[in-house]
Amino acid sequence: MRIVRFSKDGLANYGILAEEMVFPLRALPFEKIIKDEPALALSTVKLLAPCEPTKIVALGLNYRDHALEFGRPVPDEPLIFLKPASAVIGPEAEIVYPRMSRRVDYEAELAVVIGRPAKNVRAADAKHYILGYTATNDVTARDLQKKDGQFTRAKGFDTFAPLGPWIETEIADPDNLDLQCLVNGEMRQNSNTRNQVFGVFDLVAFISQIMTLLPGDVIATGTPSGIGPLRPGDVVEVRLEGIGRLRNRVVAEQ
Amino acid sequence: MRIVRFSKDGLANYGILAEEMVFPLRALPFEKIIKDEPALALSTVKLLAPCEPTKIVALGLNYRDHALEFGRPVPDEPLIFLKPASAVIGPEAEIVYPRMSRRVDYEAELAVVIGRPAKNVRAADAKHYILGYTATNDVTARDLQKKDGQFTRAKGFDTFAPLGPWIETEIADPDNLDLQCLVNGEMRQNSNTRNQVFGVFDLVAFISQIMTLLPGDVIATGTPSGIGPLRPGDVVEVRLEGIGRLRNRVVAEQ
Repeated sequence: MRIVRFSKDGLANYGILAEEMVFPLRALPFEKIIKDEPALALSTVKLLAPCEPTKIVALGLNYRDHALEFGRPVPDEPLIFLKPASAVIGPEAEIVYPRMSRRVDYEAELAVVIGRPAKNVRAADAKHYILGYTATNDVTARDLQKKDGQFTRAKGFDTFAPLGPWIETEIADPDNLDLQCLVNGEMRQNSNTRNQVFGVFDLVAFISQIMTLLPGDVIATGTPSGIGPLRPGDVVEVRLEGIGRLRNRVVAEQ
Repeated sequence: MRIVRFSKDGLANYGILAEEMVFPLRALPFEKIIKDEPALALSTVKLLAPCEPTKIVALGLNYRDHALEFGRPVPDEPLIFLKPASAVIGPEAEIVYPRMSRRVDYEAELAVVIGRPAKNVRAADAKHYILGYTATNDVTARDLQKKDGQFTRAKGFDTFAPLGPWIETEIADPDNLDLQCLVNGEMRQNSNTRNQVFGVFDLVAFISQIMTLLPGDVIATGTPSGIGPLRPGDVVEVRLEGIGRLRNRVVAEQ
């Protein structure tokens, strides 16, 4: 099942996408899936980010090859950081290249969307706390990441957390999905989530020992090797097997 | 004016505190201050954290003496990190000492509460975007901060962001307030916000160049020297001139 958020005539709502039609939902998708009528043609709505996280917990160095390209050891525990909800944008929305940075990179990632409050969850139970999966781009001002040491400024700019295009609830194995990043149609990252250091269920378990995860919260599970720069005018696309394509254009800050 | 959030008979609401009475508000304090009747005696309600931030933007090394005690240079730009909303607790609520850490520290801080959406605000205009000020304790698992490098895990545990006891809207100069931390009645930190490297209005301006600040969002402006450990059973109190006392007891994780 594909869960979307969309706007139509200025109103935002959740819906179910099936065969190019969007069925609005009467309640939040974390509560109960009750489809409303009438269904709307996908082409007549604007897709938004498919959830509204209270926090995005992101992973550093969670792919062996990316740790290597950064010249950093593979961590023995997950290395987490936060991106603010104010950074979230949806598919086809614009990534704003900030004046404050001279080097902004793409980072294609699998995003886990939480479905139920999760605290001290065991890895074996984690799947019951997950609503589904979507794609994200952990856009990063690489120069500011190096300068600050802390990742918050570099990864926290408005528009630096594209999410979408929808939440796919039926993924047999989230730790075995092809993941790609294309810039202007050219392949830049090409990996599989099996190359993650820590898998999805272990990440949910680890993070939930620290902080309560809430419905709609997102875990961005880290990026593989092949990171590189974006420029205003570029179109960047994250492709995730079994989910879809998250595409965003880069524009200069006014 | 003192803005509180409180619960009474299981319901949470904002209110105005005056002469030991709480006047419930009909709307959010960011919108309009309309007092409802009847007023409630302060002793009959439970105070909650005085706002519900979508994010807490916190400052690293923003007091010269604290940078010195950490053996770090004073930063030439503000160094920001995030604490998740899931870490927020109110006055008199318990700080849970996590099993994952062997060293949990207090950090007394001034907290700025945002009143209006703020993006690319100039320092000269910043005061118009601030609702008021409260106290916070940037509780930190020092061992995990050192291990991770990134501050998120160390500062992101549930209960690690006490806020309160209320928002004081009439502070003449937020950059000249005495700030103290007491543990079991003993003074451990004793400074003044004039020792901040970057003042409140400059911080609002800087952060709002990066991310949109929303009503209820909090800026924790950093801690002075004198940081040290807490133990289960300790009572930790942050005192902030013109605002009040934020007191919390530490308990071991079950």
